[in-house]
Amino acid sequence: MTQRILPVALVQHACSSSRDDNLQHSISGIRQAAKQGAQLILLQELHSSLYFCQTENTHHFDLAEPVPGPTTNLLGELAKELQVVIVASLFEKRAAGLYHNTAVVLERDGSLAGRYRKMHIPDDPGYYEKFYFTPGDLGFQPIPTSVGKLGVLICWDQWFPEAARLMALAGADLLLYPTAIGWDAQDNDAEQLRQREAWQTIQRAHAVANGIPVLSCNRVGVETAPDSDSEIHFWGSSFVTGPQGEIHALAPADKDVVLMADIDLQRSEMVRRIWPYLRDRRIDAYGELNLRYRDQKGDPYRDLDDTGNES
Amino acid sequence: MTQRILPVALVQHACSSSRDDNLQHSISGIRQAAKQGAQLILLQELHSSLYFCQTENTHHFDLAEPVPGPTTNLLGELAKELQVVIVASLFEKRAAGLYHNTAVVLERDGSLAGRYRKMHIPDDPGYYEKFYFTPGDLGFQPIPTSVGKLGVLICWDQWFPEAARLMALAGADLLLYPTAIGWDAQDNDAEQLRQREAWQTIQRAHAVANGIPVLSCNRVGVETAPDSDSEIHFWGSSFVTGPQGEIHALAPADKDVVLMADIDLQRSEMVRRIWPYLRDRRIDAYGELNLRYRDQKGDPYRDLDDTGNES
Repeated sequence: MTQRILPVALVQHACSSSRDDNLQHSISGIRQAAKQGAQLILLQELHSSLYFCQTENTHHFDLAEPVPGPTTNLLGELAKELQVVIVASLFEKRAAGLYHNTAVVLERDGSLAGRYRKMHIPDDPGYYEKFYFTPGDLGFQPIPTSVGKLGVLICWDQWFPEAARLMALAGADLLLYPTAIGWDAQDNDAEQLRQREAWQTIQRAHAVANGIPVLSCNRVGVETAPDSDSEIHFWGSSFVTGPQGEIHALAPADKDVVLMADIDLQRSEMVRRIWPYLRDRRIDAYGELNLRYRDQKGDPYRDLDDTGNES
Repeated sequence: MTQRILPVALVQHACSSSRDDNLQHSISGIRQAAKQGAQLILLQELHSSLYFCQTENTHHFDLAEPVPGPTTNLLGELAKELQVVIVASLFEKRAAGLYHNTAVVLERDGSLAGRYRKMHIPDDPGYYEKFYFTPGDLGFQPIPTSVGKLGVLICWDQWFPEAARLMALAGADLLLYPTAIGWDAQDNDAEQLRQREAWQTIQRAHAVANGIPVLSCNRVGVETAPDSDSEIHFWGSSFVTGPQGEIHALAPADKDVVLMADIDLQRSEMVRRIWPYLRDRRIDAYGELNLRYRDQKGDPYRDLDDTGNES
């Protein structure tokens, strides 16, 4: 088999309250990536704004825009000029009172190749996304492009093996995760390290389980909510893995960076030949994955006394 | 919430062609673990024999035994004597021509608490398990014991997030993987490292995705098939993680060892409160996990020429 190398880039940067500044950061990163030869460029989640979900505030809905719309037009033109495929992220206004956390793919002819609406929506202190985003209704459909079928997912999706698997089963060549995740300063160093390691580990595992590369792009910087004491230290650490979960490139935790990596798309097939998980899935026994929980009848625990006898 | 500490142990050792010697290794490891306070003890896959699946040979079916049978009786008595729960692995003879790769759980009252029959069966050079083992027909059911509900899975199962998820959905407190995996000496050092890292990564990710600890016990030693040139260097590296995939204990790659770790079972609930994946699973959109593949109609790729135009 021949190699088929795809040069990719991830644009990791801090954001401010200025949409223009943020977009200029993304655009200059895209230009730099294209200059270095990238054919596929991934931006971080909600790259044109602060991560506004730290609080629930109806004014933030003003940040939303239609798809297609100003941002997809702008990035579409850029994709065409630079002859690259761009995966961007935006706050989609579908109707009044109906908004999504959406990733868009701009083809190198400038067209909108497709969109993915975030399916799993988080809600925990500092990440009040359920207030802003209606869960996606487009399912898990990879987006066909000139550089391959892109399994685009978004942030919280990255914790769900089901999402990665469904993309792989639909033929995704790559998984891509625009992300906004960081530390709560109240957590100690050990907890912070565990969290970032868990975040990296589970995404590397999606590569392993499905025999395809993973690209994950996170923001950096400290963002403080103006109307609460919430503060997130975004941990950057954007990365690219191969189909065994091996790290090809890893960004720092605190710097703006354009992270480049070369992906060998043929290698995924070689890895799948010797680790053929798709061959051996027990689809006859997976039915209960559709359940919220497999509730058991009665007390599931055996109650033994100190001498080991049933009590 | 109060801590609930469960001291666990993994018994990692090399095997020979002598069943008695192998069982003595397992038993002395169990005794040592119990002496050090372990209440739950996990053995490696097929711990009473060489890993016989390197070749397809009908004589190896002589190694199989019924459940309950000699090994479960022996280990049941030991479990009762030491007041520990033992998770062991054996080659189950269910009928002539019908065999399983089975894990058994011995309760500290000496009884057989339950069994799990390996659901995913590998078949690749050196691991010809499809010749020996009928795929399990008991599904993914955790086994209730006095120390918790045990999500017992076996080796190749560890590469399938579906198996881990189904165990968690049925209330498993822990995941346990008796394992026999190693390197092919023909692979170079970089490939060997990638394989072991992928093996560890995906199991740590099961802990992360489900918010429960994982115990994985592998053998060590070099085993050469007498009737072929197959040779496996079993990589040991047995480990215990917490519910964020954090490593609590890690064994060496080449030594017999009794690996001890303390697991805080209440911590799983704390982790799940802040990372509540079970809350957010999109069970309305997971139906196609039951498919072998989500086949697409037509050519899924866009065909653009060098100038980016549709050709």
